[in-house]
Amino acid sequence: MSKASQEGITVKKAENFDEWYTQVILKSEMADYSPVSGCVVYRPSGYAIWENIQRETDALFKKDGIENTYFPLFIPERLLKKEAEHVEGFAPEVAWVTETGGSKVDERLAVRPTSESLMYEVVGRWIRSWRDLPMRLNQWNNVVRWETKNPTFILRSREFLWNEGHSLFATREEADAERDHIMGIYRRITEEYLALPGYLGKKSKAETFAGAEATFSIEHILPDGKAIQGPDWHSDGQNFSKAFDIAFVDKEGNRQYAWQNTWAISTREIGVMLAVHSDDKGAVVPPRLSAIQVVLVPIVNDESKGAVLREARKLMGKLEGRFRVRLDDRDHLTPGRKFNEWELKGVPLRVEFGPRDLKEGHAVLVRRDTGAKRTVEADSLADEVEGELDAIQADLLARATDALAKNTHEASTLAELKKTMKEKGGIVRVPWCGKAECEEKLKAEAGGKILNVPLDQGTVLGRCAACGEGKAPWAYFGKSY
Amino acid sequence: MSKASQEGITVKKAENFDEWYTQVILKSEMADYSPVSGCVVYRPSGYAIWENIQRETDALFKKDGIENTYFPLFIPERLLKKEAEHVEGFAPEVAWVTETGGSKVDERLAVRPTSESLMYEVVGRWIRSWRDLPMRLNQWNNVVRWETKNPTFILRSREFLWNEGHSLFATREEADAERDHIMGIYRRITEEYLALPGYLGKKSKAETFAGAEATFSIEHILPDGKAIQGPDWHSDGQNFSKAFDIAFVDKEGNRQYAWQNTWAISTREIGVMLAVHSDDKGAVVPPRLSAIQVVLVPIVNDESKGAVLREARKLMGKLEGRFRVRLDDRDHLTPGRKFNEWELKGVPLRVEFGPRDLKEGHAVLVRRDTGAKRTVEADSLADEVEGELDAIQADLLARATDALAKNTHEASTLAELKKTMKEKGGIVRVPWCGKAECEEKLKAEAGGKILNVPLDQGTVLGRCAACGEGKAPWAYFGKSY
Repeated sequence: MSKASQEGITVKKAENFDEWYTQVILKSEMADYSPVSGCVVYRPSGYAIWENIQRETDALFKKDGIENTYFPLFIPERLLKKEAEHVEGFAPEVAWVTETGGSKVDERLAVRPTSESLMYEVVGRWIRSWRDLPMRLNQWNNVVRWETKNPTFILRSREFLWNEGHSLFATREEADAERDHIMGIYRRITEEYLALPGYLGKKSKAETFAGAEATFSIEHILPDGKAIQGPDWHSDGQNFSKAFDIAFVDKEGNRQYAWQNTWAISTREIGVMLAVHSDDKGAVVPPRLSAIQVVLVPIVNDESKGAVLREARKLMGKLEGRFRVRLDDRDHLTPGRKFNEWELKGVPLRVEFGPRDLKEGHAVLVRRDTGAKRTVEADSLADEVEGELDAIQADLLARATDALAKNTHEASTLAELKKTMKEKGGIVRVPWCGKAECEEKLKAEAGGKILNVPLDQGTVLGRCAACGEGKAPWAYFGKSY
Repeated sequence: MSKASQEGITVKKAENFDEWYTQVILKSEMADYSPVSGCVVYRPSGYAIWENIQRETDALFKKDGIENTYFPLFIPERLLKKEAEHVEGFAPEVAWVTETGGSKVDERLAVRPTSESLMYEVVGRWIRSWRDLPMRLNQWNNVVRWETKNPTFILRSREFLWNEGHSLFATREEADAERDHIMGIYRRITEEYLALPGYLGKKSKAETFAGAEATFSIEHILPDGKAIQGPDWHSDGQNFSKAFDIAFVDKEGNRQYAWQNTWAISTREIGVMLAVHSDDKGAVVPPRLSAIQVVLVPIVNDESKGAVLREARKLMGKLEGRFRVRLDDRDHLTPGRKFNEWELKGVPLRVEFGPRDLKEGHAVLVRRDTGAKRTVEADSLADEVEGELDAIQADLLARATDALAKNTHEASTLAELKKTMKEKGGIVRVPWCGKAECEEKLKAEAGGKILNVPLDQGTVLGRCAACGEGKAPWAYFGKSY
């Protein structure tokens, strides 16, 4: 353990969120700064979270019929330019390779900001007839978007890890039907694993992915009241298939262009998750994703040491098969010091075991999220631990859901929206007719943006807060990362 | 299925290895060319092999105490230059990012050819005392080495996927002791999963990794008689820790530099594996790594169709939990056409099930590797399949081991070496004193290179084939990719 990380968090989450967030990430040893500005180093406990997200998401993808692939990192400039809106959207953020070895390249190579243009140049070759469709491919890889505005630790990094799903269908109907599958998978991963609630909806045209017809997103909220976009799914229609000539012969023998979708979840979620759940003592990580789920800290004195450690190792034997567990039998640290360290690092559950517990056949469970202590029978330790981990996982989601609800407000008019944004912040439900000029007006006057428009509108329709037009659906509005 | 891939391999492995190899990779749909010369697209069945290699290797790494991390893709030029030999070795192959968005960068960024210089700039911060060691980190990522000489499909690609392990120890003894762990893991993966034998030994100084003190490798042989380097492990001594100031306070309170190792296995192995096992009908893949292990092909006529398919689905139920299995119930293809397709794609075992099998309670197993057919009781199908897959896995290794032995020769003198290289090719065991000038002489005169020097020398020591010096250890010599 480095000295720096043994020191606790020195600012309060409620008082200085930005500094608190950075300290939590660094001092919990989840991640570190790198020598390349805007790029993140994921340390073992942070990377383990990504591995767990990846494993669970990938299992759901595979169950849904999606297959993994790998396409090259570099995209020749001419390919990136094939779809006009796509290149326009990404060109300002592209990192270009212009030299290899000692020589200039003939054609600049983009480090992929996303792989549409490279993949679609290739997959067209693999498709002849409707029998080759649907084709649902995925990659887990790294992409680079050289944002100059405000790279933010993990939340907006210049290189990030993600999945990029790319699917091709014979009809628009089949392509559209994929949305609920993919957003259902992301909903499960964000809620059941990351313990992060969010609002699902359709992005405005201005916020739609470059080259897509429609984008659907899950929008999270951070403790500072700002929204942040989570996983998304894009309906590309035939934009790319026409640009890249991805065609097939349908059942009637006619040549048709494929209908395409893309979708992604990224390492950004790790930052959102840590920001939402963590507290003034350090990181708080949902048990299903934590590198270590349980730490067993034996509490010994000179005379009890041998007996306590022997029994602690027996307890470990009961836990090891079922949980990711660590025995902290380091000699040179006091129990209090160990407690602080594991709390800083966000291990969800601590088991304390001392001479009195040994005598009485007990163990003490301490929850990271609430600090609640409970004495349990050592004989039923594994079951008790399982119950406690399940409770922590459920409670983290419940608290985050509660916080999202408390930070979500309503406004019927522009005046109300401005007042709510100024006085309360957070996410505001506001009626918006869907026109771009009204979106611009709300943005300019209320200081925020349309996050998305929920699919499930209920029956209440208002008048557009910008133009007053009737039967306007609700949109989510807020400041956003 | 695209039309091209329905056509079989049109050349013989024994007659035109290079063309045969390319056809096998492309037509089995394992991989494809990409628009970036020298870079590979891994299609689902090829990428699944890498996922399986990764999963098995990673499990052994974790059991050995190695933790996964992720470090950025880009390395600022000044860092790459910190270790002199290292930069000299890699600079000629580096792809450089010189522009981001619309602007020139202040400092060129290397797309990582390997991550020593980036990682070691960071990990030094994480280490204070001997208590922080050993630190054994790994990354599964992509690297770029812009080889201009002869990129070869999968075997030498300009971007490849690999693991890069990086470990730091307090003493040379501990660092050295890691070698048998890592090379033991690689030996298990190559033999027990890839079914690839190889020669383990120490590389000559000329062939040692740039910046390392010593490199140990497993050398495979390809069917054309050329050797190819497989996984490797490097002892870096204190070269990098001194260049990057990675120091710790030892138990006595003295400041010491860490001792470092690195190690890797890459996607190249997939190419070696396919080249070694495949045949004139297409790909042959070891069952433990194959995306699909078993394909069940029902053989139906109009009257039996319903009953055969119903029973085939029941058989699938018995297989699905235990194996990666596919039911090929496509209507528009004849059984013969299906057999050819799955043979081309390298599925290890085919189950045929027709009306007569239904009546008699049988099923027919057909091995991809030998073509051997065997009728088994349908009731015990799953156990029979398991036995057959185990046999295929074992036989592939046995045959490859046999081929390696047959392609390994001995030579005691330079004249013998030249004659053997000319007449037989393959790998030749030859006594070599270890001097660089003798290595150069053997290379220049016999047309090949020192592959490595086996650790287990037995008792036979000869005279150096180049200088005649006595007590020279045996080295493996051969042409190499």
